[in-house]
Amino acid sequence: MKRKVAILGATGAVGQRFIELLQGHPWFDIEVLAASERSAGKKFSEACKWRLESEMPKEIGDMPVVNTTLKEVKEASNVDFVFSALPGNIAGPIETEFAAEFPVVSKASAHRMEADVPLIIPEVNPEHLGLIPIQKKNRGWNGFISTDPNCSTIQLAITLKALSRFGVKRLIVSTMQALSGAGYPGVASLDIIDNVVPFISGEEEKMESETRKILGTFDGKQVQPANMTISASCHRVNVKDGHLEAVYVELEQKPSVDEFKAALRNFVGEPQKLKLPSAPEKPIIVREEVDRPQPRFDRDAGKGMSIVVGRVRSDSIMTFKYLCLGHNTIRGAAGAGILSAELMAAKKLI
Amino acid sequence: MKRKVAILGATGAVGQRFIELLQGHPWFDIEVLAASERSAGKKFSEACKWRLESEMPKEIGDMPVVNTTLKEVKEASNVDFVFSALPGNIAGPIETEFAAEFPVVSKASAHRMEADVPLIIPEVNPEHLGLIPIQKKNRGWNGFISTDPNCSTIQLAITLKALSRFGVKRLIVSTMQALSGAGYPGVASLDIIDNVVPFISGEEEKMESETRKILGTFDGKQVQPANMTISASCHRVNVKDGHLEAVYVELEQKPSVDEFKAALRNFVGEPQKLKLPSAPEKPIIVREEVDRPQPRFDRDAGKGMSIVVGRVRSDSIMTFKYLCLGHNTIRGAAGAGILSAELMAAKKLI
Amino acid sequence: MKRKVAILGATGAVGQRFIELLQGHPWFDIEVLAASERSAGKKFSEACKWRLESEMPKEIGDMPVVNTTLKEVKEASNVDFVFSALPGNIAGPIETEFAAEFPVVSKASAHRMEADVPLIIPEVNPEHLGLIPIQKKNRGWNGFISTDPNCSTIQLAITLKALSRFGVKRLIVSTMQALSGAGYPGVASLDIIDNVVPFISGEEEKMESETRKILGTFDGKQVQPANMTISASCHRVNVKDGHLEAVYVELEQKPSVDEFKAALRNFVGEPQKLKLPSAPEKPIIVREEVDRPQPRFDRDAGKGMSIVVGRVRSDSIMTFKYLCLGHNTIRGAAGAGILSAELMAAKKLI
Amino acid sequence: MKRKVAILGATGAVGQRFIELLQGHPWFDIEVLAASERSAGKKFSEACKWRLESEMPKEIGDMPVVNTTLKEVKEASNVDFVFSALPGNIAGPIETEFAAEFPVVSKASAHRMEADVPLIIPEVNPEHLGLIPIQKKNRGWNGFISTDPNCSTIQLAITLKALSRFGVKRLIVSTMQALSGAGYPGVASLDIIDNVVPFISGEEEKMESETRKILGTFDGKQVQPANMTISASCHRVNVKDGHLEAVYVELEQKPSVDEFKAALRNFVGEPQKLKLPSAPEKPIIVREEVDRPQPRFDRDAGKGMSIVVGRVRSDSIMTFKYLCLGHNTIRGAAGAGILSAELMAAKKLI
Repeated sequence: MKRKVAILGATGAVGQRFIELLQGHPWFDIEVLAASERSAGKKFSEACKWRLESEMPKEIGDMPVVNTTLKEVKEASNVDFVFSALPGNIAGPIETEFAAEFPVVSKASAHRMEADVPLIIPEVNPEHLGLIPIQKKNRGWNGFISTDPNCSTIQLAITLKALSRFGVKRLIVSTMQALSGAGYPGVASLDIIDNVVPFISGEEEKMESETRKILGTFDGKQVQPANMTISASCHRVNVKDGHLEAVYVELEQKPSVDEFKAALRNFVGEPQKLKLPSAPEKPIIVREEVDRPQPRFDRDAGKGMSIVVGRVRSDSIMTFKYLCLGHNTIRGAAGAGILSAELMAAKKLI
Repeated sequence: MKRKVAILGATGAVGQRFIELLQGHPWFDIEVLAASERSAGKKFSEACKWRLESEMPKEIGDMPVVNTTLKEVKEASNVDFVFSALPGNIAGPIETEFAAEFPVVSKASAHRMEADVPLIIPEVNPEHLGLIPIQKKNRGWNGFISTDPNCSTIQLAITLKALSRFGVKRLIVSTMQALSGAGYPGVASLDIIDNVVPFISGEEEKMESETRKILGTFDGKQVQPANMTISASCHRVNVKDGHLEAVYVELEQKPSVDEFKAALRNFVGEPQKLKLPSAPEKPIIVREEVDRPQPRFDRDAGKGMSIVVGRVRSDSIMTFKYLCLGHNTIRGAAGAGILSAELMAAKKLI
Repeated sequence: MKRKVAILGATGAVGQRFIELLQGHPWFDIEVLAASERSAGKKFSEACKWRLESEMPKEIGDMPVVNTTLKEVKEASNVDFVFSALPGNIAGPIETEFAAEFPVVSKASAHRMEADVPLIIPEVNPEHLGLIPIQKKNRGWNGFISTDPNCSTIQLAITLKALSRFGVKRLIVSTMQALSGAGYPGVASLDIIDNVVPFISGEEEKMESETRKILGTFDGKQVQPANMTISASCHRVNVKDGHLEAVYVELEQKPSVDEFKAALRNFVGEPQKLKLPSAPEKPIIVREEVDRPQPRFDRDAGKGMSIVVGRVRSDSIMTFKYLCLGHNTIRGAAGAGILSAELMAAKKLI
Repeated sequence: MKRKVAILGATGAVGQRFIELLQGHPWFDIEVLAASERSAGKKFSEACKWRLESEMPKEIGDMPVVNTTLKEVKEASNVDFVFSALPGNIAGPIETEFAAEFPVVSKASAHRMEADVPLIIPEVNPEHLGLIPIQKKNRGWNGFISTDPNCSTIQLAITLKALSRFGVKRLIVSTMQALSGAGYPGVASLDIIDNVVPFISGEEEKMESETRKILGTFDGKQVQPANMTISASCHRVNVKDGHLEAVYVELEQKPSVDEFKAALRNFVGEPQKLKLPSAPEKPIIVREEVDRPQPRFDRDAGKGMSIVVGRVRSDSIMTFKYLCLGHNTIRGAAGAGILSAELMAAKKLI
């Protein structure tokens, strides 16, 4: 039997991706669409200006939008859990309200760094879901909050997990991030035409702190952050989708270039072993062309769920340098949330 | 009395910038325009499709184009020296031919790394011009070749020179380079729309080797490369002009952020002391806004001759990280050549 | 003695252009900067995020911003007249309030089509300023309102005035308009990357109605709209500045292509005769290249005040077709206002 | 049994689209890939830099490339017919050579306007295939040449056919065409960034002449061009795929807006009746949103084979104005060729 889900923030950019990706999903059915008071009471097709290249699914367009409150979502229908695609600045208290009764799988940053809240990438740290019973007990909730990392962090962390056998000590990353990462309307066209904006508020801090938590060790009680140093410089470029990251990594061991690539190429995690519906066959694709990955050509690899790595070179300062690319609104947002929920479903957490 | 110059490769993208920047120049007059056989014999306005936003100067348009051979340039007029804006793949032997009789100030990469050829940034290593008499003697030439570095190297090296008081040990740089760096037609629009191309042939190697030569020590006989390690990752973004570079630098000393900025801000070199006509008042401008430098807004600083630095932060892995930006076809190409020639003129080398 | 001006809406995109273009103006001095309540009381440099490639003038940055009310502007200083760069949706009553005491030269659309309000292009219909005494009398004002047309209208109307000797009967125009026409933040980058938006709210109606008023006849009492039919289709393209328009025009007479071009090329109006400070030497430049005008290359012609026409061809349906291009925030906005004010100053109206 | 095809010009931009669209085709199998001498003898994956977002099909990459001569294609394998994706400047004699023995379905312009060569859009003028036996007889060929129109013509002509019941007398069209229409490398990025290029060589003439032939009457012997006047102005914008056209059409009758839209919306042709594999269910989709069609959002409608019309308005000069959009390398190129071949297969011509 399929689980019924509510999407909080359904009319926004990430909410739309959730809707698109959940079409025909074998395990989850969209039951409630929730958004701000302004949209509540309207048909979804009237409340939402659809911004994806795909068409808005007709039956979704005909659904009513309800206000993003626990009371109104519950009145609308019975749901098994909720996806939160809420804007970061309002997500905090709303998610807390819902977590009292429902599992909340959240793309928002509000609760990510709280000690008893898992920050999950299914291929990387599924064992961190062990925080959930602790969190429920701590907070006296029937539900819980599980979070997905920042978009630019996810793709990086997946490559680092694959490299963890070599001991990741330090890394420097310089990003070239896509416009859709800023939501809609997001970046003004006059700011980005013939330009790069070398600043994304809070992004460098998120990459540095979230990565250490994700790659940290869960000892049954808490997550000990990974002992590695990360320094990020984040930049916005004139690309629709697909974050590109130039990574310099220092390892404890000195694998050959071939061993390094093989570790990336052969990496699989629990989603692959469990054959979760949204799991890409290959979490990481390593390309050999001299000029790849490129956002427009590689962002849709593995239906947007694979990370594409290229230009692996040994480095004179760190141990290796490479480029990695991921689709920021699929693997970096809605697809991440869905894969997390699939993992929780497989583990009977939702 | 003004010096008469020939421009080799006058119809190309860099050649056009030389022409534009030499309009009204107080010391240099364009006397001969030389280009490939295909253009030779035509009026410049017929041979050249002008690609700059400024208008082609009328009197330049009426000048004849001569073939890029020593014989034909000499027959066309008496010149005092030549600027070479030739494509890298053909510049080598042509510049050698001209150097037998004339000073050649070259933007091409062909001779940059030869031991007796100076690789000059006037603010950084004017003393390397001491290689010229050695080169003339070595090669038995009446003229000589002096070269300007690669565009992405120049802006970086200027900041490193300003930081040299702190002892630069190692640096990592990740570039976001403009389309005009690839010349014309250069990058196909279908390759860069909604995209980044994370590869520029030969660029990383040039940044790594040229920087060490430029910052090296001239002992009266030769240049000893600077003892520093550099690792570059180079990427092309959808920007017309202006290379943006994310730099991570490790220093021997640990200045404060303010001392670091002051060293950049207060840096001046010989062009400023000599008040050379094309010298910017400030070789480096440090901006305090959280989101600068940006290519479209900062590339024209100091008439395209100033480097703009921003986002100076102390770093957890290296000592500092910062962004720097320069106009790649002015400070990084034609303007660099003209400033070098002005320095040589001031030193009676041309 | 220079006239003192206040700029209403000084922090917006058009307001910034007014400030930029008034630097060093021989007749006008910026005395008061007014903006919304949110900005009032701050220094201009704190209230305004400067969006132009030029630097914010330092002395402007240090000026205080006052609220956009008649009372507060009067308290701030004595001014001779005001430029209104207010957003269209709030300009109406504010301009009315100011007009009771001051001449208001407005870029906003609010009052353009009112019968006693001149809609001025100085080269086209300076005689329409004859409406001003009528308006003052009608409304019992000490000041008055004079308006400048919509940006896409101005460039078209200038070419039509030059062609008026041939009798303009009908015209079809299809526009490719720049992003800056929508103000800031204006068009979202996600809406325009790899895209065209074939709709600009109200634009087609403005082009059709304003053009007829501008080219209409002032009989000493009122303006009789020109007897011509206009049909516009307006589209937004991924260009920063410079509206490009494909025009098909039906004339009563059948001039030759050369006569047609000569009429455009030789056109001058009162600003040229009066040598107004902002008047371009040539209101219209006709280019002969097969592929001009182009926004990036032609928008700055005549310091952004000339209209560039190209590809004049006789047509099988209408009489001629051609392209015209103008800088939408200079000739189409702030520059238009300044030139209008200069005309009024020359005529002792301000 | 599936027909075996050769693709001439297989490594080019249109050739690649043919390969992509023929994957899994129910009637046609790619048997031979032919390209210029430079590519001949190589594996396709070595000869071709794949420029589509999809991956090059593996089995295609392993196929050998043969030289584009009749002899070498015949030696390579038996084929039933050939698709020509050759560049316009070399297609003429090569297609003639092949037509002596094979049906040639050509995207090139070389033979389009020859009197006995059909210029086919399957929904519009399938009866023009009646020229084929005449052509074979005229020229003494075993094969024949059938051509597909220019990309910007196809989408326009489909809408005109749907409107033909109202009597199309005259039309004005202003295009905003995509970069991919110029092939690869095609438009230089430096020419189009922050710009529009208002000229495409030969395009206006093609739209004007081809449309009249396509919509002309085949009387059993020849095609009498349609008695309508067309005037085009063609412009290149910074869009990857999808030509957008602003159309003004004068009709003999005066249908209501609803009748006009219904004629477009309900239009079907032989491909729909015959249920050809590549036929879109709806040749024309009419959208009601005020700001559609848009290239990025509408070009993939009907797998790139539907034309999207929007903004239908009655017009003050012509009868109606509207926007139409089509995918220029699918419906406008490779998809057009495949649909034409399907029609010929259904009619036993190949």
